[in-house]
Amino acid sequence: MRRITLPTLDAAVARKVLVGFVRDEIRKVGLNRAVLGLSGGIDSALSCFIAAEALGPENVLAVRMPYRTSSQGSLDHAQLVIDQLGVQSETVEITAMVDGWRRLSPDMTPLRAGNIMARCRMITLYDRSSVFGGLVVGTGNKTELMLGYTTLFGDQGCALNPIGDLFKTQIRALSAEMNVPRVIIDKAPSADLWEGQTDEQEMGLSYDEVDQLLHVLVDLRYSTEEAIDLGFDPAYVRRIWRMVSRNQFKRRYPLIAKVSGRTVGADFLYPRDWGV
Amino acid sequence: MRRITLPTLDAAVARKVLVGFVRDEIRKVGLNRAVLGLSGGIDSALSCFIAAEALGPENVLAVRMPYRTSSQGSLDHAQLVIDQLGVQSETVEITAMVDGWRRLSPDMTPLRAGNIMARCRMITLYDRSSVFGGLVVGTGNKTELMLGYTTLFGDQGCALNPIGDLFKTQIRALSAEMNVPRVIIDKAPSADLWEGQTDEQEMGLSYDEVDQLLHVLVDLRYSTEEAIDLGFDPAYVRRIWRMVSRNQFKRRYPLIAKVSGRTVGADFLYPRDWGV
Repeated sequence: MRRITLPTLDAAVARKVLVGFVRDEIRKVGLNRAVLGLSGGIDSALSCFIAAEALGPENVLAVRMPYRTSSQGSLDHAQLVIDQLGVQSETVEITAMVDGWRRLSPDMTPLRAGNIMARCRMITLYDRSSVFGGLVVGTGNKTELMLGYTTLFGDQGCALNPIGDLFKTQIRALSAEMNVPRVIIDKAPSADLWEGQTDEQEMGLSYDEVDQLLHVLVDLRYSTEEAIDLGFDPAYVRRIWRMVSRNQFKRRYPLIAKVSGRTVGADFLYPRDWGV
Repeated sequence: MRRITLPTLDAAVARKVLVGFVRDEIRKVGLNRAVLGLSGGIDSALSCFIAAEALGPENVLAVRMPYRTSSQGSLDHAQLVIDQLGVQSETVEITAMVDGWRRLSPDMTPLRAGNIMARCRMITLYDRSSVFGGLVVGTGNKTELMLGYTTLFGDQGCALNPIGDLFKTQIRALSAEMNVPRVIIDKAPSADLWEGQTDEQEMGLSYDEVDQLLHVLVDLRYSTEEAIDLGFDPAYVRRIWRMVSRNQFKRRYPLIAKVSGRTVGADFLYPRDWGV
């Protein structure tokens, strides 16, 4: 029934493009170093492999930022990446900071706590980057960005993101090409907010399936009706498109009221590296 | 010599436009409440006045977020705004959270600490907003945005900003129109990072003067050479333009490497409220 499928990623080409992207964009601003958070998952592992190949492992600082509920397995997987690449590394526990907010709201939901954790990690990475002299490299993939499974000004916050245009299934293909440890590629994706959490369980979907649908809706610009005609389940299509569209606020600059001839975000628009 | 000056703001019109902006943009996403940080300074006071007029004071939550070095004067001025408008209010001290990072780097510079404070305030506002059911309203002005005197994912981080297209001198005019307390309008602008700090001293410029130059360079699109021909000091023009251009990264969405037909930030572009 589904005659349109996400094309297989040419992983060798993607590797070349993304390594060049990181090298060029960081050199353009007069730097040659990168800082990123390593969660133990595949996305940040792949970003780290790309950054290390682009800049040399000595110019990459990988930061592990566990909260007290983070699993030892996640920490160990992050260490595998550090050891294999030989990048610089630090471990900064964010428990004291996060619990500063949790103490104010003892009944805090896991969602609120997760957003605070993601934002505390952003703070940590930006602070380390100012000392290390590098740019913060993002680690979010296109599936997450499209579904809004990301924290605005948290994991979304970075200077540049080499993998933000790769769906989760493409992340896996490129990770295999770049020799990311197999145990990291094969494990179930998880935000590690609590023991046993998996992304797919929490969102109630499979990455393999949703990536196919997102490719049709986003890359190919099919309408929801056209996607349904291709054989996708109508309720599923509507649910996913609703997630995509409702989370647009996480994919753009804050809205500024326009009262002058030139307004930031509206018509004062230059590339990120303009004028450096 | 300077024949071109920033036009006097029509404060009555600006008031109407900006109040309408806040009301419309928040209602569009199905909400009618706002959360903002009140520093005690003019910018956040004005944003609060606009939000209260747009939504009713009962639908605005003003949060005071002192750090241990914040001045009592700042807290008192924020309270003046709360009392005059009758908005809802909270005080959340961010000392414990900020000091979680400071303890890791006892030699932390005031700049690094200031960025951490701004980002801890963002975290606090976003967390409060999820409980209060409102959007986070920004409080940064156009002069700061242009000069880069702002913390990315800190005070820059908001859902919508009614005053981000108003230069500091225009902020003063609108604040007078809206009856912001005179003591707040007249005091020297300060980020309150340490006792006696003022923005103008720290940046080494005067808002009155730099706003004139920014109007010419930004709104009117004059080149630096043309601005110098108008009578502005050449070294000053070059210095200010360098500040403007070097800080472009704070005025745009993180850069995502493009490998597909549609990429966030490049050609997957919709309004903030698309699809809600």
